Amino acid sequence: MCELNAFVTEDGKEELLLENVDTLRVEDDKIVLRSLFGEEKVFYGRIKEIQAIKRKIILALPG
Amino acid sequence: MCELNAFVTEDGKEELLLENVDTLRVEDDKIVLRSLFGEEKVFYGRIKEIQAIKRKIILALPG
Repeated sequence: MCELNAFVTEDGKEELLLENVDTLRVEDDKIVLRSLFGEEKVFYGRIKEIQAIKRKIILALPG
Repeated sequence: MCELNAFVTEDGKEELLLENVDTLRVEDDKIVLRSLFGEEKVFYGRIKEIQAIKRKIILALPG
């Protein structure tokens, strides 16, 4: 399985937001993440980077 | 391996932009994609959706 783990980065630190992410949708100013297990989280910010082999989505606060 | 394939969607159609994407970086108004094989592509637009299990990145034109 190729699910991803989503982190929020700030001041050079990364904090785990949601594991086992299957889908991510960008809707205006928010990002809606849903895990394989049906958990949904909303993040107000932006996508900074995706690292597929490392299975990471890196999000950042707006701006 | 969990590389992703990047598509551009427009008018309900999807066109393949780059296969075997390892990293994607968002830089201002552009998205820089790099494949496992070192190929780099730049797309001026936005991320619409990521589907990890289907291994898809779906991009869209700005707006």
